[in-house]
Amino acid sequence: MTIKLYCMGESGNAYKAALALELSGLDWEPVYVDFFGGETRTDAFREINVMGEVPVLVDGYTTLTQSGVMQMYITEKTGKFGGATPEEQREVMRWVFWDNHKLSSQAGMTRFLMNFLPADKRPADVIGFTQGRLKAAYTALNEHLEGRDWIVGNGITNADMSCCGYLFYPEPFGFDRAEWPNIDRWLSNIENTPGWKHPYDLMPGSPADRA
Amino acid sequence: MTIKLYCMGESGNAYKAALALELSGLDWEPVYVDFFGGETRTDAFREINVMGEVPVLVDGYTTLTQSGVMQMYITEKTGKFGGATPEEQREVMRWVFWDNHKLSSQAGMTRFLMNFLPADKRPADVIGFTQGRLKAAYTALNEHLEGRDWIVGNGITNADMSCCGYLFYPEPFGFDRAEWPNIDRWLSNIENTPGWKHPYDLMPGSPADRA
Repeated sequence: MTIKLYCMGESGNAYKAALALELSGLDWEPVYVDFFGGETRTDAFREINVMGEVPVLVDGYTTLTQSGVMQMYITEKTGKFGGATPEEQREVMRWVFWDNHKLSSQAGMTRFLMNFLPADKRPADVIGFTQGRLKAAYTALNEHLEGRDWIVGNGITNADMSCCGYLFYPEPFGFDRAEWPNIDRWLSNIENTPGWKHPYDLMPGSPADRA
Repeated sequence: MTIKLYCMGESGNAYKAALALELSGLDWEPVYVDFFGGETRTDAFREINVMGEVPVLVDGYTTLTQSGVMQMYITEKTGKFGGATPEEQREVMRWVFWDNHKLSSQAGMTRFLMNFLPADKRPADVIGFTQGRLKAAYTALNEHLEGRDWIVGNGITNADMSCCGYLFYPEPFGFDRAEWPNIDRWLSNIENTPGWKHPYDLMPGSPADRA
């Protein structure tokens, strides 16, 4: 049975699950959700997910939301990306939680405010504030990656696929990988992983479609 | 060996781990961190946690950060609070991630900005913006709790102990439990759990100490 991922290319949270699915070798397909047309705010969609959020993963009778849970599920099914020892497993989860709390949540919101809202509706104070918080997050990640190829252990894990969620997007939100040498090198390691695809190549939907 | 939790009463993220430790019956003790005096910004503290955050849990040779990871660890050690079936386990993790992403992260920041910054440094636009996002989060949680005593299954789990992290604090941040009847009832269920303690009773440090 083919796993379905309800998603759109613009969502870095969806990308975290899509990339894990793609690199895991599981049989999956993306199903486009018209987020910008309001689909996630419909009753039909909220029946699938009271949180009203993309992505949603459907595998037979199993329906999951929250990219972190999907990554754990893919690890459960394939044994991949979860860390090799109990210590590594905890360290992977630590960075996935940190990403949800401090990095992707703020990066996704800031990118949305700066690119997907009409120019006269962009709250400058909020954007400045979240960019300040993001700078602290980039600093912590860049420091951790000093001397490391991957966030945990010797290969790509859910920690990498979570933290990179918004970092490949071209739309400006205040992140310039050239300013963060360890992050830049690590992102190249991810890009060089066999099977890697950019979010706009892995999932349907991109700003170009609405241009 | 007694588990040590580096924490302070003001931290709802620390409370999530402290409450799980307390209700689990594990042998633990809180170690006060002088967050407001700058302790988490010292090199010594950042050596323990590059993320520069409280809480930190130390159990013998195991050092953990991120409250979600601590809750998973307590579940691993005791079999408690993680959900009874694979479906419940995923549902627990789903709400813990959602809380980290949408509820506690925003509530903690908003409470900090409104109460722990000097009055002339409080960014009104940012506070208004995060309160709007929080309202959407309270709505999703309140809706999910319709007809339910607990977020998942028939008893308290990590999902409850994560989502309630900031909701017992007296300092104003725009949350009034009387406005959310299902959340209010659910918080009472948590308060009535044998062994339950308020964050300021469970951990050292409170605004009263600095008054």
